[in-house]
Amino acid sequence: MTFRDNNHEHRILRLDELWNQLTDLSNFAREFGIEDIFQDNGAKVLQQLIYLNFRIIPGREGHDAYSEDACEWEMKSINLETSATGFSTNHHTTHEIINNYRNVKWSFAIYHGITLEEIYVMSPRTLEPFFSQWDGQLNEGREHLNNPKIPVSFVRQNGVRVFPFDPNHPIDPQSIN
Amino acid sequence: MTFRDNNHEHRILRLDELWNQLTDLSNFAREFGIEDIFQDNGAKVLQQLIYLNFRIIPGREGHDAYSEDACEWEMKSINLETSATGFSTNHHTTHEIINNYRNVKWSFAIYHGITLEEIYVMSPRTLEPFFSQWDGQLNEGREHLNNPKIPVSFVRQNGVRVFPFDPNHPIDPQSIN
Repeated sequence: MTFRDNNHEHRILRLDELWNQLTDLSNFAREFGIEDIFQDNGAKVLQQLIYLNFRIIPGREGHDAYSEDACEWEMKSINLETSATGFSTNHHTTHEIINNYRNVKWSFAIYHGITLEEIYVMSPRTLEPFFSQWDGQLNEGREHLNNPKIPVSFVRQNGVRVFPFDPNHPIDPQSIN
Repeated sequence: MTFRDNNHEHRILRLDELWNQLTDLSNFAREFGIEDIFQDNGAKVLQQLIYLNFRIIPGREGHDAYSEDACEWEMKSINLETSATGFSTNHHTTHEIINNYRNVKWSFAIYHGITLEEIYVMSPRTLEPFFSQWDGQLNEGREHLNNPKIPVSFVRQNGVRVFPFDPNHPIDPQSIN
């Protein structure tokens, strides 16, 4: 791997070709308010927004979104190749954050690498056992919880799967209660 | 934007086409030890590794790298569209981390969005004024520093620019002292 030898030149050319293909994706993401496809899962958030028919809330941290009916959504994703313990929430989870969680609907996207395998949607009511448990832990005197997780198995058992689309009866995420 | 109307179907098709093009980039990144191009600037790190002729240190957090001569590098990047204050370092910078910083060479990549504009390389000696200043702040009794920054202007003035490649005299990053 000598600098600028034939092999290095070849790697550079290959990278440049692949990079040029990213321009369209990057521009598409900007139309959806995502400034950087390589930060904070930007491209994956774009993909979920499009499949779910959501729009992002501009300028807001965390890439949360609205459905057409003006409901707010908390969008979560996991890459099972790099983490297995469950969907992350917030590294400083407080009562206030938990109460916000009770006022939004939830989507959970499951990836292997960059391949989207499934998306589930869920009402906050279904997640209430977790919210109550976290409130209880905070009531024991902890200032905040460090990223309490929502297990993938729970989501698969209790969520409504909206992706892959059912070709006969695709489910509009906003239709869940 | 009605669910699965013609416009929605069109957005899905467009996304799917763009996504299929990512497979090659994702596979290329895996060859370099980068598991997820959309996390932690994965694709941008791949791009810098290739241009700089570095290899990543497998399994290590932070995507740090080696050059061919077995020198270790601290790789930094900034997107001037989303942050302007300088290159981030570490949210828990301690004396120990600063001492590690003294033992590696540094690369600084400057992006606008996903477009790489410049890469500078620098010896730790050149950065010593910052390291001394941070040590001093810690000596005043702080447990750690929260992400002290290295200004872009300092890097541009004091670094060796290695990208864009000079067509006549490309500089091998590992040649700096």
